[in-house]
Amino acid sequence: MLTIKRLDLDDARVMIKAATEKANALGVAMCIAVVDDSGFLIAFERINGCKALSTHLAQDKAFTAAISRKSTEAHNAACQPGNLANGMNTAMGGRFSLVGGGVPVVVDGEFVGAIGVSGGKPEEDIQCADAGIAAWEARS
Amino acid sequence: MLTIKRLDLDDARVMIKAATEKANALGVAMCIAVVDDSGFLIAFERINGCKALSTHLAQDKAFTAAISRKSTEAHNAACQPGNLANGMNTAMGGRFSLVGGGVPVVVDGEFVGAIGVSGGKPEEDIQCADAGIAAWEARS
Amino acid sequence: MLTIKRLDLDDARVMIKAATEKANALGVAMCIAVVDDSGFLIAFERINGCKALSTHLAQDKAFTAAISRKSTEAHNAACQPGNLANGMNTAMGGRFSLVGGGVPVVVDGEFVGAIGVSGGKPEEDIQCADAGIAAWEARS
Amino acid sequence: MLTIKRLDLDDARVMIKAATEKANALGVAMCIAVVDDSGFLIAFERINGCKALSTHLAQDKAFTAAISRKSTEAHNAACQPGNLANGMNTAMGGRFSLVGGGVPVVVDGEFVGAIGVSGGKPEEDIQCADAGIAAWEARS
Repeated sequence: MLTIKRLDLDDARVMIKAATEKANALGVAMCIAVVDDSGFLIAFERINGCKALSTHLAQDKAFTAAISRKSTEAHNAACQPGNLANGMNTAMGGRFSLVGGGVPVVVDGEFVGAIGVSGGKPEEDIQCADAGIAAWEARS
Repeated sequence: MLTIKRLDLDDARVMIKAATEKANALGVAMCIAVVDDSGFLIAFERINGCKALSTHLAQDKAFTAAISRKSTEAHNAACQPGNLANGMNTAMGGRFSLVGGGVPVVVDGEFVGAIGVSGGKPEEDIQCADAGIAAWEARS
Repeated sequence: MLTIKRLDLDDARVMIKAATEKANALGVAMCIAVVDDSGFLIAFERINGCKALSTHLAQDKAFTAAISRKSTEAHNAACQPGNLANGMNTAMGGRFSLVGGGVPVVVDGEFVGAIGVSGGKPEEDIQCADAGIAAWEARS
Repeated sequence: MLTIKRLDLDDARVMIKAATEKANALGVAMCIAVVDDSGFLIAFERINGCKALSTHLAQDKAFTAAISRKSTEAHNAACQPGNLANGMNTAMGGRFSLVGGGVPVVVDGEFVGAIGVSGGKPEEDIQCADAGIAAWEARS
């Protein structure tokens, strides 16, 4: 038997709150999704005005980061043409996302879930995802 | 041009909070999803301990109720064998749900979104969805 | 509650008529789809002789432009290898289109729907989509 | 943070061995899949001669039992016409299985995974799944 650590609803709320504050600071309406270690959704919020696509992309990014234990940004770099990982994004019914903004959450080397953000440029989405994780790590 | 009313994030939070209180009163861990008039997710929460399936079913139920403007309970009744609507649940890539617990939200005759709840028996899920809508309608 | 503007059937007819005239001028049989702000179809016409694929592609292009609030041509440019958005086309069950010819419709900064055209070369499809929107904007 | 128990590879091997012995006793070539608490595969074996369909069905049954925390046999009974759960089998892209032979594995009230068996009649599949779990529970 294995024993697994997994994010809970309070953890997800802390991350969503901080990611939302960062999105507001950037002035971009975003969607933020937090999933467990197996990619199943724990909590999600769409800032008013965020485009419909992001409701799916935020979830797909978080899903990808959780089940692969790697950020979507890192996958993007690894999946360039000429690399043997190129084309991996058709996996999982096409939900495997190479778009920056999905980041795994790690505790003592164990992968416990992931956050996915969509709505801005990938660089902005990554900033919000990182802000969510940083706030959660800094919680007392 | 048409002008459409649509639930916003504050609306969704009110519904999720009330549906969660009902679920806690019933002693069942549930997932609650609130979607806009076109079925795109606005907010979602999974009560700690809720089974993984419900993370999808809650969204599917809300999606179905929103885009069809009818509760999944009503669809269930209409889709019985022998009825010409039977089999409709394969639509929308199989996301069309006949399982009770998806309820549209109506304001002055206009469909503005939907709530979907999963985790208990369908009868319990319906109670939580109704509690979410009732609290939202009663808000000042 | 949010208030959203959305294209209606008359709007869609104006765009399809103008896009069809442009397609006829180019001598290419095309499909033209107009969708609402959430990507759901409002009106669609296939010029006699247009290939079967285009009945789907025109809808996918319009769908993509609507839910992402960006033209498929712009997505194509942004999704090149080396960009953090590369690979996004597997999203939405593969319906996310990078093929030029899907253009969002904007009124006073608000995204109210989109047009998608398929049947010719992407450059021709884009001309027809633009012609549809231009005629609609110029209507009295 | 939550702490979750999950089957490991040794657990899965014990179940597959016992389910295989039961299948051999019945004289039916079967597939046996064991998945974790979130429905992801841990181990799988196809007895020589088992039909191709069963390689998918065994996984779908185990997946369904794991993420829903209920046997596929119980779902079959609950999803009869007239019940509010009727039609649930189109969920999860159609992988949600109502066919007997998927059984969750429970330890001290916690759902830690599931076994799915396919190849014989559902009644035979269920016998093999139960044999797998019984042997695992009886291990020292």
